[in-house]
Amino acid sequence: MHVDLVADLGEGFGAYRVGDDAALLDIVSSANIACGFHAGDPRLMEETVAACARRGIGIGAHPGFPDLVGFGRRAMELTADEVRTDVLYQLGALSAFTTACGTRMRHVTPHGRLGNLAMSERPYAEAVVDAVAAFDRSLTMVTQGGVLAETARKAGLPVAILMLADRGYRDDGTLVPRRDPGAVITDPAEVAARVVRAVTGGVVRTVTGHDLPIACDTVLVHGDTPGAVDLARGIRGALREAGVDIVGMP
Amino acid sequence: MHVDLVADLGEGFGAYRVGDDAALLDIVSSANIACGFHAGDPRLMEETVAACARRGIGIGAHPGFPDLVGFGRRAMELTADEVRTDVLYQLGALSAFTTACGTRMRHVTPHGRLGNLAMSERPYAEAVVDAVAAFDRSLTMVTQGGVLAETARKAGLPVAILMLADRGYRDDGTLVPRRDPGAVITDPAEVAARVVRAVTGGVVRTVTGHDLPIACDTVLVHGDTPGAVDLARGIRGALREAGVDIVGMP
Amino acid sequence: MHVDLVADLGEGFGAYRVGDDAALLDIVSSANIACGFHAGDPRLMEETVAACARRGIGIGAHPGFPDLVGFGRRAMELTADEVRTDVLYQLGALSAFTTACGTRMRHVTPHGRLGNLAMSERPYAEAVVDAVAAFDRSLTMVTQGGVLAETARKAGLPVAILMLADRGYRDDGTLVPRRDPGAVITDPAEVAARVVRAVTGGVVRTVTGHDLPIACDTVLVHGDTPGAVDLARGIRGALREAGVDIVGMP
Amino acid sequence: MHVDLVADLGEGFGAYRVGDDAALLDIVSSANIACGFHAGDPRLMEETVAACARRGIGIGAHPGFPDLVGFGRRAMELTADEVRTDVLYQLGALSAFTTACGTRMRHVTPHGRLGNLAMSERPYAEAVVDAVAAFDRSLTMVTQGGVLAETARKAGLPVAILMLADRGYRDDGTLVPRRDPGAVITDPAEVAARVVRAVTGGVVRTVTGHDLPIACDTVLVHGDTPGAVDLARGIRGALREAGVDIVGMP
Repeated sequence: MHVDLVADLGEGFGAYRVGDDAALLDIVSSANIACGFHAGDPRLMEETVAACARRGIGIGAHPGFPDLVGFGRRAMELTADEVRTDVLYQLGALSAFTTACGTRMRHVTPHGRLGNLAMSERPYAEAVVDAVAAFDRSLTMVTQGGVLAETARKAGLPVAILMLADRGYRDDGTLVPRRDPGAVITDPAEVAARVVRAVTGGVVRTVTGHDLPIACDTVLVHGDTPGAVDLARGIRGALREAGVDIVGMP
Repeated sequence: MHVDLVADLGEGFGAYRVGDDAALLDIVSSANIACGFHAGDPRLMEETVAACARRGIGIGAHPGFPDLVGFGRRAMELTADEVRTDVLYQLGALSAFTTACGTRMRHVTPHGRLGNLAMSERPYAEAVVDAVAAFDRSLTMVTQGGVLAETARKAGLPVAILMLADRGYRDDGTLVPRRDPGAVITDPAEVAARVVRAVTGGVVRTVTGHDLPIACDTVLVHGDTPGAVDLARGIRGALREAGVDIVGMP
Repeated sequence: MHVDLVADLGEGFGAYRVGDDAALLDIVSSANIACGFHAGDPRLMEETVAACARRGIGIGAHPGFPDLVGFGRRAMELTADEVRTDVLYQLGALSAFTTACGTRMRHVTPHGRLGNLAMSERPYAEAVVDAVAAFDRSLTMVTQGGVLAETARKAGLPVAILMLADRGYRDDGTLVPRRDPGAVITDPAEVAARVVRAVTGGVVRTVTGHDLPIACDTVLVHGDTPGAVDLARGIRGALREAGVDIVGMP
Repeated sequence: MHVDLVADLGEGFGAYRVGDDAALLDIVSSANIACGFHAGDPRLMEETVAACARRGIGIGAHPGFPDLVGFGRRAMELTADEVRTDVLYQLGALSAFTTACGTRMRHVTPHGRLGNLAMSERPYAEAVVDAVAAFDRSLTMVTQGGVLAETARKAGLPVAILMLADRGYRDDGTLVPRRDPGAVITDPAEVAARVVRAVTGGVVRTVTGHDLPIACDTVLVHGDTPGAVDLARGIRGALREAGVDIVGMP
């Protein structure tokens, strides 16, 4: 039994850094790397790609909205063509560094608000899928599900379903919104136990107390909040103890 | 006998356009395409790549300094690592659109002040060459000569020497600076005659009246000043009349 | 009898220019000047402010969304605090140039999608009004009406109602959307006649053929489409012929 | 006896933060606030201005080169006109927030490489001074000295001389370059003692061991390196113990 652990890396910019990338590199088997639109710059992108390559960590693109000051978290009403070409640009930019480092990109997962919109709005999903399919059909689309997973599968792209380690789920499989109770699970032991159960048992306890079947090819851990790295380490430890290997996506 | 005609295309941004790209597409055999740092955006890059692909025009990257408001014309004191990674990022970004359009990039030529510095300053030349060599060793480095040509050859990259159609040359083969008399040749007939002589005879008359041997694999024509497209058309016509074919770089 | 004629000026950026600002400066009595977020840069802002000051043209700020590549035409889901502080920043930036040129700012009108949202969505209207009221309560808010006019009046700001010279109106006083028939009136004589009628008679013929009472303190003319400057000249000429003076807002 | 303590504040951007602004606000009597070109955004600028206003901390503008990814630390070859208008834009932008917070700007000090160039190159110094003089002649120019101080005095601007608390000085009054031994003094007690000696005795021990007369109207403390806030606290404590009051510039 095995699962992938993934984190968002390289989310700094210029002189700025967020999260503890060095610590996360010892925990995860895959990385979502910012591509310069919402975060990331050429130096940081190369440095992150090189660090992943040295450790055999699977490299994925994390394209976002062109909104550095908003960190890609603010909705922008872009045309499908704008989304598609913005994603293409970012995929290409990151691929220059995988090429220069003698490795390759394995997956794509849209960042922040672009990711949310692509999961729920068909035009955004199709635009992201069109970009990936035009660039490299072997790239795995990583998403929690929703319209993006469906659209990617229809286009023949490999799909991996992402579980958010510390977020509450509703009965319909969507996340509890951040403003509602149960949105974030803060107890490290509970988070680790939920992940082990999802990976080994294929279920997650929802916010209403039901058991929901859940696919889980990869688990997203965070590194940019206090205690987040310890949480990630706890998840990794609990999985290994339960006999689950941490290996990158195929 | 044949030569390449090249122009800078896709130098607009967002709602802005410069030059008459549509007219130039009927004249040139190669294009230097802006990559988003000094000019260009994802839509314009794709549109320009697609237009070139449809006509069989050779596509080249035109990476510049990260200075949109200065159009890449202002010197920036970057480290070699900053230049190298900035160029890599731009090569990758443009390659996403050649890939999506089912074609490929053929050459690279640095834009504006980055181009000037790379021709005269070894660290800039080496940084540009390192980026290209790490990305794709089959790309032709296009330059007027100088340190960039030398560094590229030493690294094993193909090199094509560029002639500037309407600029005056000094006896040492460098351009007459724009502030000096003889910097720009404005008479269309004289410009066309100089190009034909350079291509068929391998010499150019310098500002002091001497004949200077000159290599000329490709001729740069402009499209962003009044009369520039007519000038370019005149050059093309004169070359054809002299029995020179206009064909892209190998 | 008098009215103000206003145009959007200084909408270029760096090496880019849009519209024929020089021609418009001979036609209008007020200018909406881009402030660097959707268009405009410090040089162009100063140059435009100085040109207006020399001619006694009323200077207004034209703050927009922080989206240069989208020219401020794409909706962004900003918080009220983000809108308010973005507008404050832009007002301050423009005021540096009015101060340096020995003149002052007279009005404010939000650009593009920010303008549209501020006319229809209360949180955007309030954010814009809060910024203006905090910066300088003597500034006139220029708008077609809607929630922005109402909010500005409630806050005690002077308000001037803007008529769009070449756009069709619906019976409720809103514009015919650009995708619908009758959105844009292209016949120069008809445009000029409509403006004269609105200014002297206080009515406009709507797209359904009714006469709608309309306030008209200032008339927006364009300069960035072919024939736009001639259209603007025609409006000015027709107004003068009808005995209407072209004078800036009070 | 009294002196001003000043720190660079508001140097984050969007989701990014650098330094411990909250701690520094309890230590300093003046703040240099980033204006959005090398760092800072409208929210952070307002937040920082408001925090300073609440505590009576003197507010100064910290304009920099338009180079967010380089944090304003990279030389850019701008024309005097570009420097002047870039500085004007930033002064205006910050003044919107002082106006909105019911306070005013007191001083200006150029950031990073712009600051270095303005101290040593006359055209940069004149461009900065021209901008400040055109905007508000009551603003104090804060600088270590050099051409900027001289140019500002000649233009009639108030000037305050800045001492860098933890940097080594050469016999000619310039700083020991960062790459040379003695560039940075790391012992907290030594730093505090040097500051007290400079403020009360008007001398600093240079890297060659001589005593150099030094003017010191304000002392720059840092907050963005490990231990920097403690260093700043130590300086404040030592000054108070020596009977020196910490008060803002006049």
